[in-house]
Amino acid sequence: MDLKVGVIGTGFIGREHIKRINNKLSGAQVTAVNDINVEAAKSIAEKFNTKFYNSAVDLINSDEVEAIIVASWDPTHAEFVLESIKAGKYVFCEKPLATSAEETLMIIDEEIKFGKKVVQVGFMRRYDRGYREIKNEIENKEIGVPLIIHSIHRNKVPEPQFTTEMSIKNSVIHEIDLYRWLLGEDYKIAQVVIPKMSKNGKGELLDPQIVLLETESGVRIDVESFVNCQYGYDVRCEVVGEEGTLTLADPHQTIKRKGGEKSHPIFLDWSDRFSEAYDIELQEWINDVKKDEMNGPSSWDGYMASYTADLCSQARINNEIIEIPTQKCPDFYCK
Amino acid sequence: MDLKVGVIGTGFIGREHIKRINNKLSGAQVTAVNDINVEAAKSIAEKFNTKFYNSAVDLINSDEVEAIIVASWDPTHAEFVLESIKAGKYVFCEKPLATSAEETLMIIDEEIKFGKKVVQVGFMRRYDRGYREIKNEIENKEIGVPLIIHSIHRNKVPEPQFTTEMSIKNSVIHEIDLYRWLLGEDYKIAQVVIPKMSKNGKGELLDPQIVLLETESGVRIDVESFVNCQYGYDVRCEVVGEEGTLTLADPHQTIKRKGGEKSHPIFLDWSDRFSEAYDIELQEWINDVKKDEMNGPSSWDGYMASYTADLCSQARINNEIIEIPTQKCPDFYCK
Amino acid sequence: MDLKVGVIGTGFIGREHIKRINNKLSGAQVTAVNDINVEAAKSIAEKFNTKFYNSAVDLINSDEVEAIIVASWDPTHAEFVLESIKAGKYVFCEKPLATSAEETLMIIDEEIKFGKKVVQVGFMRRYDRGYREIKNEIENKEIGVPLIIHSIHRNKVPEPQFTTEMSIKNSVIHEIDLYRWLLGEDYKIAQVVIPKMSKNGKGELLDPQIVLLETESGVRIDVESFVNCQYGYDVRCEVVGEEGTLTLADPHQTIKRKGGEKSHPIFLDWSDRFSEAYDIELQEWINDVKKDEMNGPSSWDGYMASYTADLCSQARINNEIIEIPTQKCPDFYCK
Amino acid sequence: MDLKVGVIGTGFIGREHIKRINNKLSGAQVTAVNDINVEAAKSIAEKFNTKFYNSAVDLINSDEVEAIIVASWDPTHAEFVLESIKAGKYVFCEKPLATSAEETLMIIDEEIKFGKKVVQVGFMRRYDRGYREIKNEIENKEIGVPLIIHSIHRNKVPEPQFTTEMSIKNSVIHEIDLYRWLLGEDYKIAQVVIPKMSKNGKGELLDPQIVLLETESGVRIDVESFVNCQYGYDVRCEVVGEEGTLTLADPHQTIKRKGGEKSHPIFLDWSDRFSEAYDIELQEWINDVKKDEMNGPSSWDGYMASYTADLCSQARINNEIIEIPTQKCPDFYCK
Repeated sequence: MDLKVGVIGTGFIGREHIKRINNKLSGAQVTAVNDINVEAAKSIAEKFNTKFYNSAVDLINSDEVEAIIVASWDPTHAEFVLESIKAGKYVFCEKPLATSAEETLMIIDEEIKFGKKVVQVGFMRRYDRGYREIKNEIENKEIGVPLIIHSIHRNKVPEPQFTTEMSIKNSVIHEIDLYRWLLGEDYKIAQVVIPKMSKNGKGELLDPQIVLLETESGVRIDVESFVNCQYGYDVRCEVVGEEGTLTLADPHQTIKRKGGEKSHPIFLDWSDRFSEAYDIELQEWINDVKKDEMNGPSSWDGYMASYTADLCSQARINNEIIEIPTQKCPDFYCK
Repeated sequence: MDLKVGVIGTGFIGREHIKRINNKLSGAQVTAVNDINVEAAKSIAEKFNTKFYNSAVDLINSDEVEAIIVASWDPTHAEFVLESIKAGKYVFCEKPLATSAEETLMIIDEEIKFGKKVVQVGFMRRYDRGYREIKNEIENKEIGVPLIIHSIHRNKVPEPQFTTEMSIKNSVIHEIDLYRWLLGEDYKIAQVVIPKMSKNGKGELLDPQIVLLETESGVRIDVESFVNCQYGYDVRCEVVGEEGTLTLADPHQTIKRKGGEKSHPIFLDWSDRFSEAYDIELQEWINDVKKDEMNGPSSWDGYMASYTADLCSQARINNEIIEIPTQKCPDFYCK
Repeated sequence: MDLKVGVIGTGFIGREHIKRINNKLSGAQVTAVNDINVEAAKSIAEKFNTKFYNSAVDLINSDEVEAIIVASWDPTHAEFVLESIKAGKYVFCEKPLATSAEETLMIIDEEIKFGKKVVQVGFMRRYDRGYREIKNEIENKEIGVPLIIHSIHRNKVPEPQFTTEMSIKNSVIHEIDLYRWLLGEDYKIAQVVIPKMSKNGKGELLDPQIVLLETESGVRIDVESFVNCQYGYDVRCEVVGEEGTLTLADPHQTIKRKGGEKSHPIFLDWSDRFSEAYDIELQEWINDVKKDEMNGPSSWDGYMASYTADLCSQARINNEIIEIPTQKCPDFYCK
Repeated sequence: MDLKVGVIGTGFIGREHIKRINNKLSGAQVTAVNDINVEAAKSIAEKFNTKFYNSAVDLINSDEVEAIIVASWDPTHAEFVLESIKAGKYVFCEKPLATSAEETLMIIDEEIKFGKKVVQVGFMRRYDRGYREIKNEIENKEIGVPLIIHSIHRNKVPEPQFTTEMSIKNSVIHEIDLYRWLLGEDYKIAQVVIPKMSKNGKGELLDPQIVLLETESGVRIDVESFVNCQYGYDVRCEVVGEEGTLTLADPHQTIKRKGGEKSHPIFLDWSDRFSEAYDIELQEWINDVKKDEMNGPSSWDGYMASYTADLCSQARINNEIIEIPTQKCPDFYCK
């Protein structure tokens, strides 16, 4: 039987998930949609032959919905996730899980109280085949103990409302989660440096930024975030180990030789670049929901990513090197 | 509603397709399986919670089966495809469509008589993202008119029963179909040359072979088929045009630097290399069946590939350059 | 003491050699120049502060010249090489050594009569670091016995006077020499096929051409020669062995990411691409002359390359597969 | 006439330079050698048919020496450079120019007093074709204004006596000079962070280190120095500009496919990797000496590199972010 999925939020990412579930993935159907933009949501509902709900809370509690995807405006995430927990239903929430540490901790409390992990956070990079191969090679001790990670996260141009803070809280948060997962440890030091501004920069936006992190065991990480790099969407990573290094390959299908150049295309945005990762992420989530167990990024992972991002942001604002206080993971999440 | 699919043949490729449909793709479920190896088929049926049919013909005609996948032993393909046409059901047949030209033409006759295209042949490379990008770039006139195609098709080691003839009829047939599709024209000249044998060669098997083709408009194609290359599964292609060239990129996710070398893994077999192409192929087929229209490789494509492969094989046996007689495509297939 | 070199021919390649010897290489100076174009040669002589000779024969016999470089018009090569042998001086001759088999054999006769190898032919690719690495790896049995060589030789645009015949005799002759040297054996079969013409083609010129060769032991070789490929100068080579393959890397120093593309420059012509090979070639020749021994491509190598090229040319004209009669190498050249 | 060069120091790099000048480059001969290790120097003198001098000062002042190369033990550099200035002869000094700021400033004083630039410092990376291409592309505004430089400098294993301080003063000093040259500006901020130690680390040696620099205009630079990376010698650089990026390509001549991997060799040490850069560096120096003008890295460049390296070293020791005081370049060096 297909899993009945309700999707809250029918913006770009919400629509992508509806298409994915209905046209590509196995074992689920979108049976309900909701969005604050009623007209848009209704038209989506019609297009995908699914039911429109005027209220997100009604959608969550509907008998026609077995699991929920939250892809609405960030400030509403916490509310809908809490409501889903209350309804005892699995909920997949796009990052961030919440916009403040307090809200995230409330979610964690409710989930622990509920007694079963039901929340998954949308850190799709953990499902990218390249990163998985790197994780696998590290675990096979192919390069010895990791010592350093160099990484790059560039966007062609930022959306108009993009702010200095979002560079860390919306972009670098992916790397923050990813390297916790890759290395299996938390961060202890954060610093942010601001290079020269590009003439293509917009108003107040500080860009590029370089986030410097150190993990508990001493691994040093640098993440360049450049949201206005002009040439395309570019994500890179090199893990430097005692015996060798692992680098994410530039993905491309073809090579063109023309006009004095050998070239290949660079992706234009994250939805292209991580299209397959999103597929795998949601397929594994559907399968997990049906097996009645959550294995993806948990509420705690969502909390730790936001917690670290907040401190990075603070390090930037105060222009200081910050010691990140240790957070004890509840047994509920880290047996 | 999920499309009910019956799978005939539960060998390696059949099992892969069952897994794909049940666990990865959208809109279909395998509801019936059959294989001459009854024990194996029963255990597969149990594992995937589907029904075992003792007779392929019964499976084809069952009310619980809306469309059929033929993945059985090559010599049985024609019979099951013909039966499916008779039953008025869509049928996806792994290549080859039949093992002789006569049988293939019988299928074509029956399909035309039936009055609707219901047969698709499993040339999965047309669904590979790299080849699709190349086709797209050619159509966009990025490299001008194509003049030459260089290509390579290497397997690590052949299966024990692999014969000299299979190198063309089972391996190179993929390139034969692919370049017809890429260039939109048929072949007019064929030649085969046999290089020096490798010491790793097995008995009578002539390997490697180089197939040389010329299309109606004069495009020259070379295909190296080397089924015992020892180092991995390697498929390459360069289309040389008037203004530039397009090359299939070597797919890889990561790069390792270790022990004095920068390296990346090579796939070990076709099922890894073209895993995503198989997904897309079957998903599009499912979608097409539900839309009641066939858009993939047709019976005629299956016929033309086999027809050309037969003549290449004859060119090899007689060690001569063969003129390939033109075949007129029926309007039914080429409006 | 610097070796005193006389250069006959002050066209493009002659001037490059003069610059090389005077400004880059060790142990030699150009002391004399000659060219049929007196004005040009005089101006070169002045620029490089060397002496102009009105007659090539006088230059060869001058006391101020210890060794000769022949870089004049092809039809004059044989005469100047023969004169150099007569004068008992080392002579480096740009390919071809002569424009007919008869003349080449005359050179060989004279050299044998003289009793010491004094002639070297300018097959500079043997000095390219990439080809040398491939040769070395083959000799170290890194890929087992070679079975196939695929290769490509493309020029951006041909010079106006370029003919169909020159494609083999001036371009592919490099590959003909190179693979004899790489594999250590001669050719026994030749065939030439002519793909579709490019719209950029000029008049009568058949282009591209594909030369197919087979060596005595059965190694199959294909060489695509495309002198009007529009996008740059591109030379490629893959040697396929029993256990693996070796490919010439695309040389480039930098990678640019810009405007949605990752790209690197392709060389525009052979003088850029093989600049370092020319340096090494002439430096080794200077050193050999001073040690009084010739180790580079000999008159016999020059003969065998021309001999094979002539038969390839004949194969093209008659559109037939030609058996190449075996030529016995004199002990003088192949002890 | 060949320039008569005296070489002080016949260790590894000294011998390489002697070979280079005598066997590869144009316009110079080594006529005199000296080393504190008399036996070794005598044997070198014999091997290269040149004269052994018991005293470096005698060598410098000999009539048979027109220009000097200082490749002796670091602490002796200043003395021999000063002596060469006093003798009014051009002197090429391997980096560092001196082991203290005071000595370097003494050299600068003497050179200014002498009234003509006669000193060149051996920063060979400025002569690498890749870096030159990057500099050229930047100057052509191909990527807009540079904002960030990421770089890597790894050695397979350190020599036994290698210390924590040498990581900056002997290795990273190359990048310090290089980016001053590439960007045309000095540094204003330095910081050093120490990642987790490798188990292959030796005793007290802190390794890897990451040096973080900021230039006067705000360009951020990171340099990873890892002298014990085990897998080879690896130097990388990416310049990130407003409109695109430029990356140093990994140099390699061939690609091998074997045993499930596509790979190419990594250089084992700097002398291989920068062999061609050394050739170009010394050839240009010889040419400049003959033209009686110095165009390479000056005493001031040597001073600024050491000055910055000293402050980086201090930043590491004190674990602080250091403001680098501006140094005014004398008109003598910067017109």
